[in-house]
Amino acid sequence: MAYRAAVVGGSGYTGAELLRLLADHPEIEVSLVTADANAGAAVGDLYPSLAVAYEGVTYEQVAPTDLAGLDLVFLCLPHGQSQALAGDLVDTVGHVVDLGADFRLPITDYEQWYGERHSAPDLLERFAFGLPELYRDEIVGAQHVASPGCYPTTASLALAPLLAAGLVEPAGIVVDAVSGVSGAGRGLKATSLFAEVSDNVNAYGLLTHRHTAEMELALAHVAGEAVQVLFTPHLVPMSRGILATCYARPVPGVSLRTDGLLAGYRDFYAAEPFVHVTAGSPATKATLGSNSVHLTVRYDERTGTVLAIGALDNLVKGASGQALQNANLVLGLPETTALPTIGLMP
Amino acid sequence: MAYRAAVVGGSGYTGAELLRLLADHPEIEVSLVTADANAGAAVGDLYPSLAVAYEGVTYEQVAPTDLAGLDLVFLCLPHGQSQALAGDLVDTVGHVVDLGADFRLPITDYEQWYGERHSAPDLLERFAFGLPELYRDEIVGAQHVASPGCYPTTASLALAPLLAAGLVEPAGIVVDAVSGVSGAGRGLKATSLFAEVSDNVNAYGLLTHRHTAEMELALAHVAGEAVQVLFTPHLVPMSRGILATCYARPVPGVSLRTDGLLAGYRDFYAAEPFVHVTAGSPATKATLGSNSVHLTVRYDERTGTVLAIGALDNLVKGASGQALQNANLVLGLPETTALPTIGLMP
Amino acid sequence: MAYRAAVVGGSGYTGAELLRLLADHPEIEVSLVTADANAGAAVGDLYPSLAVAYEGVTYEQVAPTDLAGLDLVFLCLPHGQSQALAGDLVDTVGHVVDLGADFRLPITDYEQWYGERHSAPDLLERFAFGLPELYRDEIVGAQHVASPGCYPTTASLALAPLLAAGLVEPAGIVVDAVSGVSGAGRGLKATSLFAEVSDNVNAYGLLTHRHTAEMELALAHVAGEAVQVLFTPHLVPMSRGILATCYARPVPGVSLRTDGLLAGYRDFYAAEPFVHVTAGSPATKATLGSNSVHLTVRYDERTGTVLAIGALDNLVKGASGQALQNANLVLGLPETTALPTIGLMP
Amino acid sequence: MAYRAAVVGGSGYTGAELLRLLADHPEIEVSLVTADANAGAAVGDLYPSLAVAYEGVTYEQVAPTDLAGLDLVFLCLPHGQSQALAGDLVDTVGHVVDLGADFRLPITDYEQWYGERHSAPDLLERFAFGLPELYRDEIVGAQHVASPGCYPTTASLALAPLLAAGLVEPAGIVVDAVSGVSGAGRGLKATSLFAEVSDNVNAYGLLTHRHTAEMELALAHVAGEAVQVLFTPHLVPMSRGILATCYARPVPGVSLRTDGLLAGYRDFYAAEPFVHVTAGSPATKATLGSNSVHLTVRYDERTGTVLAIGALDNLVKGASGQALQNANLVLGLPETTALPTIGLMP
Repeated sequence: MAYRAAVVGGSGYTGAELLRLLADHPEIEVSLVTADANAGAAVGDLYPSLAVAYEGVTYEQVAPTDLAGLDLVFLCLPHGQSQALAGDLVDTVGHVVDLGADFRLPITDYEQWYGERHSAPDLLERFAFGLPELYRDEIVGAQHVASPGCYPTTASLALAPLLAAGLVEPAGIVVDAVSGVSGAGRGLKATSLFAEVSDNVNAYGLLTHRHTAEMELALAHVAGEAVQVLFTPHLVPMSRGILATCYARPVPGVSLRTDGLLAGYRDFYAAEPFVHVTAGSPATKATLGSNSVHLTVRYDERTGTVLAIGALDNLVKGASGQALQNANLVLGLPETTALPTIGLMP
Repeated sequence: MAYRAAVVGGSGYTGAELLRLLADHPEIEVSLVTADANAGAAVGDLYPSLAVAYEGVTYEQVAPTDLAGLDLVFLCLPHGQSQALAGDLVDTVGHVVDLGADFRLPITDYEQWYGERHSAPDLLERFAFGLPELYRDEIVGAQHVASPGCYPTTASLALAPLLAAGLVEPAGIVVDAVSGVSGAGRGLKATSLFAEVSDNVNAYGLLTHRHTAEMELALAHVAGEAVQVLFTPHLVPMSRGILATCYARPVPGVSLRTDGLLAGYRDFYAAEPFVHVTAGSPATKATLGSNSVHLTVRYDERTGTVLAIGALDNLVKGASGQALQNANLVLGLPETTALPTIGLMP
Repeated sequence: MAYRAAVVGGSGYTGAELLRLLADHPEIEVSLVTADANAGAAVGDLYPSLAVAYEGVTYEQVAPTDLAGLDLVFLCLPHGQSQALAGDLVDTVGHVVDLGADFRLPITDYEQWYGERHSAPDLLERFAFGLPELYRDEIVGAQHVASPGCYPTTASLALAPLLAAGLVEPAGIVVDAVSGVSGAGRGLKATSLFAEVSDNVNAYGLLTHRHTAEMELALAHVAGEAVQVLFTPHLVPMSRGILATCYARPVPGVSLRTDGLLAGYRDFYAAEPFVHVTAGSPATKATLGSNSVHLTVRYDERTGTVLAIGALDNLVKGASGQALQNANLVLGLPETTALPTIGLMP
Repeated sequence: MAYRAAVVGGSGYTGAELLRLLADHPEIEVSLVTADANAGAAVGDLYPSLAVAYEGVTYEQVAPTDLAGLDLVFLCLPHGQSQALAGDLVDTVGHVVDLGADFRLPITDYEQWYGERHSAPDLLERFAFGLPELYRDEIVGAQHVASPGCYPTTASLALAPLLAAGLVEPAGIVVDAVSGVSGAGRGLKATSLFAEVSDNVNAYGLLTHRHTAEMELALAHVAGEAVQVLFTPHLVPMSRGILATCYARPVPGVSLRTDGLLAGYRDFYAAEPFVHVTAGSPATKATLGSNSVHLTVRYDERTGTVLAIGALDNLVKGASGQALQNANLVLGLPETTALPTIGLMP
């Protein structure tokens, strides 16, 4: 094993999923798994799926000094906690890959959407935005990476080819998305209980969901101009999976057809190992447990609207798989190492 | 019991749901339950939930003449079959309530969206469009009723107050909706199998779902002008429930606020026993098994968009409950008779 | 309305289910709904299904004195809390119906299975065991009732005819049961999260589940001798529903056949409005939302084993519906008042 | 790639799962995928999860002669169809691994439990019973393998150490099991529809489920004497997963303790790469998508009963994973090749 890694916050769902993927990684060794609230517990007690692969491994409660010298530190922490920790890490570990929201946005966007001061604004420029399909060059040249959220990953990949080609208006975009409940993490809240989620769908975060800012950021990056998105997430009764259905209006004068749009998407993502463009309608289950994202696009002549749809597993391509993809990139390893591409279906 | 009724097509999900509701109706007696493919089977064998209430009742295979003289005939048939049957019924039974799509649309809309000739176009004018909250006067004065589909009921009720008040543009409306799989009926198809639906979401009927026409019809009725909707339905892993998230653009010059919109919705539906306007975010489970529809509305100042959301049980308010509501109306009974309003939660 | 009632602990699932049922009760008026942790919250905010029926009603934090004089008090409290409260109620309110475990068992059984002292042992004799099909006479003559648990209700009704007739050995009985997760209540624990329950089954409480004692109690009541049960409960991914599959050995010398057993079950429960004996295999969904219990029985000649199966909705016949059935009995009302018998299927 | 393989019946769930696993196998190349009813369809259209890995591959309708010369043929066919095909294969292909029931049982057992004549009884001896943990020597020395069913795999592994050690009576054993609905395959039946399976549990195949015979066979193999099992399977609302809860009575005179039993299980399976013995309670989700089986055991002193529980993924260790494990064995490859051991959790 070439590289020694820590998973900080390894008792949450993104941490556990990272441990699942890392167990099969030939070049990265998990040296340390931390979890404050669950310190002392065996990994295999919280996640019996991991009992054999992580036999004897327990969650540790560690200080930053325990992490110094590691090649790679994954931060799987609740919003706000990476800020407090990163200052001690950015110069003492090889690479930090943060799965939280703390280092994804410019300072003004962060403070506007999160409604609070950022405690380490000077570190923001040390992190690349970890959406490889749209920011690969930045990531390869960076030391640290802030992996984007699950919704922004889905919506940005679904819409990017349209904005990159200047085919749709940068304003008036609607992203209507559904997510499995694992996206809310392992935290205990009534809205995550089985009896409340089953047979139920509801929208949440109406008008103000924080992931809006990341979508606008990534899409502006490809558009070369400001982009405005109205985003409505919904919770649906499944454990994993995100599907984003996106609506945009053509710029005046362009002539669009579904065939041409599909061909454009295939070109745009031709070299991408994890993106599958389909003429069918993407299904989240086709990506379950994999790092794949499935996309399609349509032009509706009747109403003059472009429809783009993306589907992925929120815990893999939407979180831990993408974090590992970023880690592979900054370590100079093949980008696809230890990342499955076939979903568990049925 | 005052009225004798038949349920034609009683082995499907809308038929079975109607039988559930009718079992508690004090003024309607179920005289006959028919089902071609399941003729001879006991109702309680297909639906053990109904075994006690319908003890000894078996599905019959009947000719139209067997229905003559009944006060009420519910048609719960696959698309196209009501056309073939209705000619024999409209003058021989008291009232027909059709739960199918055959008598909902004007002839041109029907032939455009269904891509086929209508075999009984002259009967169309004999049926009122059975959405009581928007068409009550027409229904009360009609002999026969064509109950609308589950998606059009949800979306039309969610958007009607905006269009009735002339607050939003009649074009550029987007309806993004999710449905439980019972909406696809009891027919055997791979896409309705548990192993394919669980842990899965996908959009279907992209750009061309036939329910679009009913939405445009009902909304034009309240708007007083043509309305254009782009509708995207999705299948989600639950048995029942529809949630429609709708997007519309304000007409130039109007000044909108969420508070005012909510107040307007409460006024618009003040007298409606089954409509609940909430400042919260509607959840399908709150309506499970009931005839209620829950609505909310928002104005997003940032993007200049109105967001309206509706939730209901597709088999009750979206089908059999609404059919019974229509039957109560044409029979002159209290509209709420035998229609529950409290959802099964959790 | 003749009777004034309080629901104490109305923010949990059994409390909410009781509110749902009571909303349709013509003779009982809900005067007060209490909830310590949620005091001040609107009932309709926690359960939007109840928003219309309980408009303006908020959870109160009350002292026992606030309950004095009421005709009926339902206690929907976590284990142990009814003991603390009941002393103040038994002589000041008309009837107490306790849905908890505090007054179901004789003192020695209680202290053995719960591993703690009972704080109000002298009150135990004031409560009848509220399983109407097996204890109706005791309930009718009692002032207060301790409604049994969901598993004991299912297993006891499934096995009672066998033990009442002396057909099976009172030892060596196995009850293997599955339950929906609402049985664990609305308390926040990782094992109740959607992401942990979906796609998952596991057994719990191996060898020592406390409901064992209630099964042995109720079955000894009908057997006239001590009964010994090994009980294994499992959690399955559904919100509601219990199915118990029970195994017993015939007493030597009796000659059994499935036909005869089914006939015996039909006789035993001939007068029961909520018990449905079927030659088919009971399904929990057939009872969803109703107070019905579905039963079957088989004799396996090959292995010499009797198999009995029962299914019901754990929140209705397994909790709140049965509590209301008991309330109807002690108030002298028709036993079936406000209790649905048709399950929501599909 | 060393070995060329065909998947016959590749459009069903076990076929698709085999394709998922084989896509990562370094030594086996899939040369041919057949499916009668779906011949001509693209693999990726039925299973979009496989679209990239099997790009351009379509289901073929083939004659046995098309298979001649292949190193390996997996038969994923409905019951009865392997008999018709195997005669043409056993001498023309390297190895047949049959996932169906046709070659698992001795002729008398087959004809008793399946109620029909076997059309190729002389071929039975050409197939080893493919439960590697209990029959590895037979499999390694065989040309062809009949992989056992999902329930027998679970129950046999859960009970084998008890019977091998002579600790429990070979009669009076009860196996009470639950299964996800993928076990019923992709065939279209009402009992597999989402709307019928969700929120539902029911037992099926009461007293007579055919998998009983395989359990009795495998357990007699380890016991060295005849074994009798009463088996009750249940359908629960999940796609994958089997959990078997097994009850057995100690032989007179032995002194049992849970600790000792757990130690015995750990010894018995010490060398097994896919068996995990735990002091906890196995959960199906911990094995989701993996070839692992999780086991525990208890002795209940109170009732004198041994309780053993096993959990696995019915499509992997219960079907396609085990078939691949058998293929690895007969080909002389490392047994664990291309078989994941970590479940997808959550």
